Amino acid sequence: METQGKVITCRAAVAWGAGEALVMEDVKVDPPQRLEVRLRILFTSICHTDLSAWKGENEAQQAYPRILGHEAAGIVESVGEGVEDMKAGDHVLPIFTGECGECRVCNRDGANLCERFRVDPMKKVMLSDGKTRFFTSKDNKPIFHFLNTSTFSEYTVIDSACVVKVDPLFPLEKMSLLSCGVSTGVGAAWNVADIRPGSTIAVFGLGAVGLAVAEGARARGASKIIGIDVNPDKFPLGREAGISEFINPKEGDKAVHERVMEITEGGVEYSFECAGSIEALREAFLSTNSGVGVTVLLGVHSSPQLLPIHPMELFQGRSITASVFGGFKPKTQLPFFITQCLQGQINLDLFISHDLPFHDINKAMQLLHQGKALRCLLRL
Amino acid sequence: METQGKVITCRAAVAWGAGEALVMEDVKVDPPQRLEVRLRILFTSICHTDLSAWKGENEAQQAYPRILGHEAAGIVESVGEGVEDMKAGDHVLPIFTGECGECRVCNRDGANLCERFRVDPMKKVMLSDGKTRFFTSKDNKPIFHFLNTSTFSEYTVIDSACVVKVDPLFPLEKMSLLSCGVSTGVGAAWNVADIRPGSTIAVFGLGAVGLAVAEGARARGASKIIGIDVNPDKFPLGREAGISEFINPKEGDKAVHERVMEITEGGVEYSFECAGSIEALREAFLSTNSGVGVTVLLGVHSSPQLLPIHPMELFQGRSITASVFGGFKPKTQLPFFITQCLQGQINLDLFISHDLPFHDINKAMQLLHQGKALRCLLRL
Repeated sequence: METQGKVITCRAAVAWGAGEALVMEDVKVDPPQRLEVRLRILFTSICHTDLSAWKGENEAQQAYPRILGHEAAGIVESVGEGVEDMKAGDHVLPIFTGECGECRVCNRDGANLCERFRVDPMKKVMLSDGKTRFFTSKDNKPIFHFLNTSTFSEYTVIDSACVVKVDPLFPLEKMSLLSCGVSTGVGAAWNVADIRPGSTIAVFGLGAVGLAVAEGARARGASKIIGIDVNPDKFPLGREAGISEFINPKEGDKAVHERVMEITEGGVEYSFECAGSIEALREAFLSTNSGVGVTVLLGVHSSPQLLPIHPMELFQGRSITASVFGGFKPKTQLPFFITQCLQGQINLDLFISHDLPFHDINKAMQLLHQGKALRCLLRL
Repeated sequence: METQGKVITCRAAVAWGAGEALVMEDVKVDPPQRLEVRLRILFTSICHTDLSAWKGENEAQQAYPRILGHEAAGIVESVGEGVEDMKAGDHVLPIFTGECGECRVCNRDGANLCERFRVDPMKKVMLSDGKTRFFTSKDNKPIFHFLNTSTFSEYTVIDSACVVKVDPLFPLEKMSLLSCGVSTGVGAAWNVADIRPGSTIAVFGLGAVGLAVAEGARARGASKIIGIDVNPDKFPLGREAGISEFINPKEGDKAVHERVMEITEGGVEYSFECAGSIEALREAFLSTNSGVGVTVLLGVHSSPQLLPIHPMELFQGRSITASVFGGFKPKTQLPFFITQCLQGQINLDLFISHDLPFHDINKAMQLLHQGKALRCLLRL
């Protein structure tokens, strides 16, 4: 490979300040160091976590200039020393939370927050040397990384622990969705809640993750899937994901959980909070059946408010849990999950609402910000 | 049986007001109605839930006159119509949370809060007719029930769903402990946390339930059991239950979780909150390993304070859960657990600190209240 070992100059969308339009510009990308991989990104989409970081909602996370993006698919350009499970040309997904394969967490069933490469919104440099692999083209200023991945760039450098190899026959543009949103939602339904045929569920917030939860529940044979969102424009697509009843919290006099109780005679078995709202969290908790109910948190809560639950309420047969990346260990479990999706268990086409060239990334950010896009696929 | 079908007059310790000394007096006990059982109580002990109710900590729960008590063992005096799994003379344990065997919860693995007979501190009458089976001897005034059981009486009437039959060869005085405290603690360690050999745990609050957690962890082969209590008098007994390191939160400058982190290099796998304190709850949560940590709530929290946990903290590989009666389904699972205890897996003798006649019940209440007793066995 002619670029191997050399700095690559390529186009990237750089964030220079909170809420400022991303700037499409040339950046320099260093070769991968030991146990790192340099990827050519072919497709990337935008997730709400990118949007939050772009808006700078959490001041502690602000770091500029920075290359955002973490939901993507691409091809290995070159690998650093010691990388044995991938080679140039392999089709891969970058994953924002890694798997070293050696730590206590990686060696434990049912846990996936690798001690070394877990998701960390504060991290902005490479783990090995505390430096960046991105530099501005004109004055060699370091550009920070984001969520272990930084996929809003034609090339990026990632720890190999955060890269999953996939079958080259798989359609990469759809794979992009599986590197975050769809895996997070379906995994929450399958791995965390372990929904069974006949189960009843309620999904609060019908963005891509919420719809993925519904789609996962539908695939598992849930008997009733209730969707809750303040935006009724989301209901038609929700119906395709198996949602049979919709509740708009802004309508009617009753609290959402009271309406769920009526529909289900005593509450759902599983509720999913995908809205990032404390009010939705409380309603999701109360919507479950007292005796067997489980609430799974998926939404990002940027407010400092604590859990609106009294300790004694945990003794009433309702539990609450959360998971990252749907509980999947990326390297160990994602390839089989992708196969299941491609076999038709999950309708991936449902999630792509827009398909745009990379240079339209600011338009794509606005579409997601305004709630008009589910997933905007950007082609690099 | 000469008493069958007749009202029995017997001695009971009646609570007439919040915090007032119990009055040992004659009460009338009605015969059991359909699906009820009348028991002769031979042994009862006092649990902190009795103490809380006696103090009237929660005004909504106050109801007088009332017969408290729920941790006990006895013999069936007579059974009501339709009771087929027990007969007069059977050795039994009253259990504060029942198992109807027919509802959605009873039919589900891993859940034990029966929809009909679950623990309910507000309940004060029998479910079938909303009336009491206890009356004052002198003026036939109804006396309220407590926790489905009311064992501070020589005779009591209980729904058969809340009575578990045990082998008549088992020593009934030890069985008393298994009707609440020890089963709750060991069950939390075995059923809820599912502690494995080599696990590390921290127990906050070394009363009977906390020591039962430690004893359960020891029996499962935990490699390190850390005990936390503000009262160092509890440490010697804790050592017998397998606790190898003690932390007194009142000593030293560091927060308890920082000291646990030092001892365990990154936190315990399981922590148990048995103190009923919000501060202990927070420390217990932070004492677990970020990646695999599980906190189990066992303490009763009478303060209105909400969970001191931010929603995003649930995404950091730490979860929190609670369980009632150690997750045991009383009728289905307790008999086998009792067998395991009697085979020596659990040292029941550890828990009996005092052995007194029934008429010394107020003394026993004070001993527990002052933290001087673990379990006071009262002989009726």
